[in-house]
Amino acid sequence: MATLPLSASWVTGWIGSTAALCTTISFVPQLLRVWQRKSARDISLAMFLLFSFGEACWLVYGLDIRSGPIIIANAATLALALAILALKLRYGRRDTAVDKADDRIEP
Amino acid sequence: MATLPLSASWVTGWIGSTAALCTTISFVPQLLRVWQRKSARDISLAMFLLFSFGEACWLVYGLDIRSGPIIIANAATLALALAILALKLRYGRRDTAVDKADDRIEP
Repeated sequence: MATLPLSASWVTGWIGSTAALCTTISFVPQLLRVWQRKSARDISLAMFLLFSFGEACWLVYGLDIRSGPIIIANAATLALALAILALKLRYGRRDTAVDKADDRIEP
Repeated sequence: MATLPLSASWVTGWIGSTAALCTTISFVPQLLRVWQRKSARDISLAMFLLFSFGEACWLVYGLDIRSGPIIIANAATLALALAILALKLRYGRRDTAVDKADDRIEP
């Protein structure tokens, strides 16, 4: 009789899919929160610039290795990150005056 | 003479590494911003709960397929996401009273 493998491939695939789904979908409540509050003062511009660039690289990587799941997951995450970035820039102008009062460095 | 391949494997590897590095490091300025401002009102609790769970799944997935880069990148991202989550929870108590005034739903 064959011994049971340490990890069945379908479990691994399921964990990977759950991981991709959760990390992508997680940006939806963040987008909604910024949209509803009409404020993005605590959101880091540097984070979303760097994150969007990273997601764009993941997209190119996925296209390069022709991986459907990598392309779909990262295209969706990139779209959400760019939407949050757009709101940050939109509300940023209004926030700047307030920020100047208590901020010296904006990470 | 051999034709040039559409994409050299070292270029693909470089793009993938850049992608992983940028998406991981991007959480550093967000952590610093919340830490310096002592505020996380615009940060979505649902995002960081879901994102941290997703990152934990990526970590398990990486351990499962024994991929060093996936393990390292996602362990670092998970640590940063948990730190932001901890600050969100820490400052959340103070923010709640203010939030109640203008929030009905907290995404």
